Amino acid sequence: MKGFAMLKIGATGWVEKDIPSCGPMDAICKPLALAPCTSDIHTVWAGAIGDRKDMILGHEAVGEVVEVGALVKDFKPGDKVLVSAITPDWNSLEAQGGYPMHSGGMLSGWKFSNFKDGVFAEYFHVNDADGNLAHLPEGMDLGAAAMLADMVPTGFHGAELADISFGDNVAVIGVGPVGLMSVAACAIRGAAEIFAVGSRKNCTDLAREFGATDIINYREGDIVEQILDKTHGKGVDKIVVAGGDNNTFAQAMQILKPGGIIGNVNYLGEGEFVPIPRVEWGCGMGHKQIRGGLMPGGRLRSEKLARLITTNRIHPEKLITHTFHGLENVEPALMLMKDKPRDLIKPLVLIDK
Amino acid sequence: MKGFAMLKIGATGWVEKDIPSCGPMDAICKPLALAPCTSDIHTVWAGAIGDRKDMILGHEAVGEVVEVGALVKDFKPGDKVLVSAITPDWNSLEAQGGYPMHSGGMLSGWKFSNFKDGVFAEYFHVNDADGNLAHLPEGMDLGAAAMLADMVPTGFHGAELADISFGDNVAVIGVGPVGLMSVAACAIRGAAEIFAVGSRKNCTDLAREFGATDIINYREGDIVEQILDKTHGKGVDKIVVAGGDNNTFAQAMQILKPGGIIGNVNYLGEGEFVPIPRVEWGCGMGHKQIRGGLMPGGRLRSEKLARLITTNRIHPEKLITHTFHGLENVEPALMLMKDKPRDLIKPLVLIDK
Amino acid sequence: MKGFAMLKIGATGWVEKDIPSCGPMDAICKPLALAPCTSDIHTVWAGAIGDRKDMILGHEAVGEVVEVGALVKDFKPGDKVLVSAITPDWNSLEAQGGYPMHSGGMLSGWKFSNFKDGVFAEYFHVNDADGNLAHLPEGMDLGAAAMLADMVPTGFHGAELADISFGDNVAVIGVGPVGLMSVAACAIRGAAEIFAVGSRKNCTDLAREFGATDIINYREGDIVEQILDKTHGKGVDKIVVAGGDNNTFAQAMQILKPGGIIGNVNYLGEGEFVPIPRVEWGCGMGHKQIRGGLMPGGRLRSEKLARLITTNRIHPEKLITHTFHGLENVEPALMLMKDKPRDLIKPLVLIDK
Amino acid sequence: MKGFAMLKIGATGWVEKDIPSCGPMDAICKPLALAPCTSDIHTVWAGAIGDRKDMILGHEAVGEVVEVGALVKDFKPGDKVLVSAITPDWNSLEAQGGYPMHSGGMLSGWKFSNFKDGVFAEYFHVNDADGNLAHLPEGMDLGAAAMLADMVPTGFHGAELADISFGDNVAVIGVGPVGLMSVAACAIRGAAEIFAVGSRKNCTDLAREFGATDIINYREGDIVEQILDKTHGKGVDKIVVAGGDNNTFAQAMQILKPGGIIGNVNYLGEGEFVPIPRVEWGCGMGHKQIRGGLMPGGRLRSEKLARLITTNRIHPEKLITHTFHGLENVEPALMLMKDKPRDLIKPLVLIDK
Repeated sequence: MKGFAMLKIGATGWVEKDIPSCGPMDAICKPLALAPCTSDIHTVWAGAIGDRKDMILGHEAVGEVVEVGALVKDFKPGDKVLVSAITPDWNSLEAQGGYPMHSGGMLSGWKFSNFKDGVFAEYFHVNDADGNLAHLPEGMDLGAAAMLADMVPTGFHGAELADISFGDNVAVIGVGPVGLMSVAACAIRGAAEIFAVGSRKNCTDLAREFGATDIINYREGDIVEQILDKTHGKGVDKIVVAGGDNNTFAQAMQILKPGGIIGNVNYLGEGEFVPIPRVEWGCGMGHKQIRGGLMPGGRLRSEKLARLITTNRIHPEKLITHTFHGLENVEPALMLMKDKPRDLIKPLVLIDK
Repeated sequence: MKGFAMLKIGATGWVEKDIPSCGPMDAICKPLALAPCTSDIHTVWAGAIGDRKDMILGHEAVGEVVEVGALVKDFKPGDKVLVSAITPDWNSLEAQGGYPMHSGGMLSGWKFSNFKDGVFAEYFHVNDADGNLAHLPEGMDLGAAAMLADMVPTGFHGAELADISFGDNVAVIGVGPVGLMSVAACAIRGAAEIFAVGSRKNCTDLAREFGATDIINYREGDIVEQILDKTHGKGVDKIVVAGGDNNTFAQAMQILKPGGIIGNVNYLGEGEFVPIPRVEWGCGMGHKQIRGGLMPGGRLRSEKLARLITTNRIHPEKLITHTFHGLENVEPALMLMKDKPRDLIKPLVLIDK
Repeated sequence: MKGFAMLKIGATGWVEKDIPSCGPMDAICKPLALAPCTSDIHTVWAGAIGDRKDMILGHEAVGEVVEVGALVKDFKPGDKVLVSAITPDWNSLEAQGGYPMHSGGMLSGWKFSNFKDGVFAEYFHVNDADGNLAHLPEGMDLGAAAMLADMVPTGFHGAELADISFGDNVAVIGVGPVGLMSVAACAIRGAAEIFAVGSRKNCTDLAREFGATDIINYREGDIVEQILDKTHGKGVDKIVVAGGDNNTFAQAMQILKPGGIIGNVNYLGEGEFVPIPRVEWGCGMGHKQIRGGLMPGGRLRSEKLARLITTNRIHPEKLITHTFHGLENVEPALMLMKDKPRDLIKPLVLIDK
Repeated sequence: MKGFAMLKIGATGWVEKDIPSCGPMDAICKPLALAPCTSDIHTVWAGAIGDRKDMILGHEAVGEVVEVGALVKDFKPGDKVLVSAITPDWNSLEAQGGYPMHSGGMLSGWKFSNFKDGVFAEYFHVNDADGNLAHLPEGMDLGAAAMLADMVPTGFHGAELADISFGDNVAVIGVGPVGLMSVAACAIRGAAEIFAVGSRKNCTDLAREFGATDIINYREGDIVEQILDKTHGKGVDKIVVAGGDNNTFAQAMQILKPGGIIGNVNYLGEGEFVPIPRVEWGCGMGHKQIRGGLMPGGRLRSEKLARLITTNRIHPEKLITHTFHGLENVEPALMLMKDKPRDLIKPLVLIDK
């Protein structure tokens, strides 16, 4: 089979590999829809996870099952499925302890295009099919379904980490596709004011549509000052970090009330330290919690978030600004993600038969 | 001053009393808007809290401050204020332990028209003004503001008790004004399917508008069967009980998944026992939690829920089906609540100058 | 192989069966130590789980692995292992949602001597060996290890359900072996006063040794009155129910403070309803939570609770009042459990080579 | 009256002041026992809270009420009382939101020797007596009672922030008097292994007595390596930071498992940033939570922690290595705290009549 791969750090290309083999609990799928992710860019061009040779890229897919192992109970060839980007080993100690995304080691629930080949191929392998696939709800838009692999669960995890309560004022820092889903998540989690920090018009327009009450544009002044100004100097109850870099936490700390929480879902790719400003952190005494984590993954989460689409609570298909057709177009779709033209939020590749 | 009172069990009438005196932490207010509550009906005609003589009724009000005590810092005469129906003693052991509504004893945070005169009067007394009043946000509709006294915080507490998570399927049993606010609360707390159990058309129409996905009408068959049918026999993740009686919990238990939670905000006025069906409760082993509680009350909660109105997340003013003008009309408004015509959801009395 | 079985409701006896076969994720073990449980008595003589034919009894064991499936990574023949009485399917939706004991349906994580043969046999089958076995810590007493199958995790789950906080006053109702472990759990969870309700001297003596501050004996007067008396009428913060029957909850509700929690780990075997007294429950408004659930089970829990033994925090071996030797003696050990002589807390059967 | 004061940064001395006046909710007390705290040292000689002129020092006291305001209900002159070092305004928004220690602003629940005169005087003022005093339990040792002002609640808050679960392996970094109480707290919160990091023999001996299983001495090698070594490279589940400096968090992050929590109760007095190591923090994705906060304070907490002494769960009087008599000896007691001889853990001053 052919797949689009990271050949080495800084280089991509098509490779030919054997169709992966299927263990007793596993499934082999072919893609129905694919989406490239910023992580794919970091993986190839920033070497974020170290070097890899001829590793097929991609972790966002909607699929069709072509083979299942003997122990798989709930899926069969022909089933159309949601595929979680994070596919934990559910019997691991970490999963039993509530952290499936770290099954087998920190971040090791992330397997696609990390510890094994990803989904940008004619076929891909899913470990523990019963635990990590979910049936594609009838009539669900393939674009929305593709967003359930990573954008929705990651964005929503930001709101979960920040533990939004009814009436909280919230800042969402970063309004790329993940941050936009965080905005949507905060809005349907009971937030009142949502200050969305971003500058690109298509993103900030969608942020408003998803529930942001205020757009904070760093081009119009210091974001800390703007948010303190809008909150009469008091700051916000909770913060979701879905963009920026290591220094974003220092800004966040300055606008967070005592008792507040920062929930980070932004992968921090470089730098030795994340500096937390001592005084604004209350000299370690201010009850400003700092949390950050990889999305949970797995079947239950896919099913529950899918229900939010089928009940019209969220509209992740609106993230998709560019649609391609055919597996061969994962390459230009990925390049689009690399080049980030200003009209891009998220590309989609439909694998038409 | 004059006030509309419970004269004794089963009898109401206007009484003449002294204007209440103001302690160092307290405020005296006059009403700008008032709303009668089903609790007022239970208090007078069902004797739900025992006998009371000439006790002024009412606990739902928007007010204007006319006097404050020497220790009050944040309010002054002339301020327009939200008044929480529950006004805790914030330094009590119960409040320190997270249960302000039970300050001084179970349910004792409920003072208006229970341990002291209520708000259906020319003037009313508020204990701990800094802790229990909140400034009326500029431009807020008085009807919406009046709903912040009890309907919104009680309805929302149902969703809090049931601990709604993203993608939960939820049943809300009862769609009177409290249940309708529970529906709205579940919808902006991340619920997916919301099965609203009720039969009156104006209520079920508003339930849909507030976010219900399905209306379950007991006139169309057993509600347990209907909900099991719609959930393929699996039942729901969480249940908010905002109506019914002691036997409602048995129905609820039959449609609740293991690991689910029942959050009750319905005052159970009669009967010796609430029967929990043993087998459906998993023989005590099914992790089906039963919770129920009076709304928290207080200033922070009023402020946070008010923000949900000013940011257009909720529209409690839509509960109001009948509007009266003038203090003297609290009497017909209350009688309306007693008679419950089919077009009633909630009456409001505006005290025009 | 031979095993000691429930032949039908009310009858036990030895049966001859094939050694169970081992799936790819499973293990076959032989017992090193076994303990009968009150549940075995209920299963046989009360028909608590319905009829079963020739089903081998027992769910409390320490074992030695004799065979493992091809996918098992962390265990091999010859390993000595702790065996959890509850052995969930870890990739099930219920386990993903935090309720592994209900994997596949309410209470369905309980498989031994329920949905398959139990451990009172020459060999027994363990599903998902990596997820449900744990290595026997070097030097651990086999009696203590056997208590890790059910008595310790069930007793401790009572304290978890009741959510003990530092300085809580707690009542533990029932001081059989599970209740005694609940007492120990409350004591090392930060409880202050622990009122242990029981009457048998060997049990109440051990309750004191495990951390009870007061023994409440129903033979010396109404337990509600005694506890209210000792708490100056205020009652307790939390309650663990580890004994009694459906009516125990009514007593519990009378001694529980508003904001308190009842955590039940007692299997309720008969009666249609568990009656909750309306007034003492605060008319549904008192924030007195009612929880109850089967122990979680699984490897992580076994490992973590085992650490409490190896660090000398708890001493569950003190539960064992009668020790037998040889598989054939599971029969008299079980009968002892049925007859409950006054000097019995828990019997143990060591399977010497 | 006379009091021992910070005259300015770097200078202390006795001052003569008026007896403080008593508001309607307040109490005036005279001290029965006093204890100096490291914070007093930081306040005077490091200028940790900025400059203060002639401010009476001290926030750890047991007292006797000499006057109460008209609104005080539960205390009267002559009552012996526990005095919390943190005395919140209980009706503030922050307290209503669960963070009383930040009432009125970050850390502003800390009033003694910060925003007003402290307790090292013939008389001292307590705001909100009903909310912030607690009756001294009959027969309680005055030394143990004095430790309830700050050492016990602060040490215990570390264990609360780190959210210790049954069977957790925990590191407690720093075994001064606060860290020692954290060790005791972890032990009665269900921790298994407790790695106490410290080097002074009297402290590490007491750490063992309070429940530490291992002493990690930085003089014997890198503490990170030692702890990783003892945990087979896996690290610990939770960490309490009760000593060290800004760089301690980097060490902590290296020994913390994914899903773990750092609970800090150490006041960080200098440096611009607390550096969090990016890679060990899982690139922001490792679910390693960072929490830190001032102790809660108030009456309920004093009462609940006092119960742990009266039920013999903890023995904070063992912290006291040096006992003085007479108010005049707060000066040498404070100097002892400044000089920190190796045999010191905590000094106490008894104010004999």
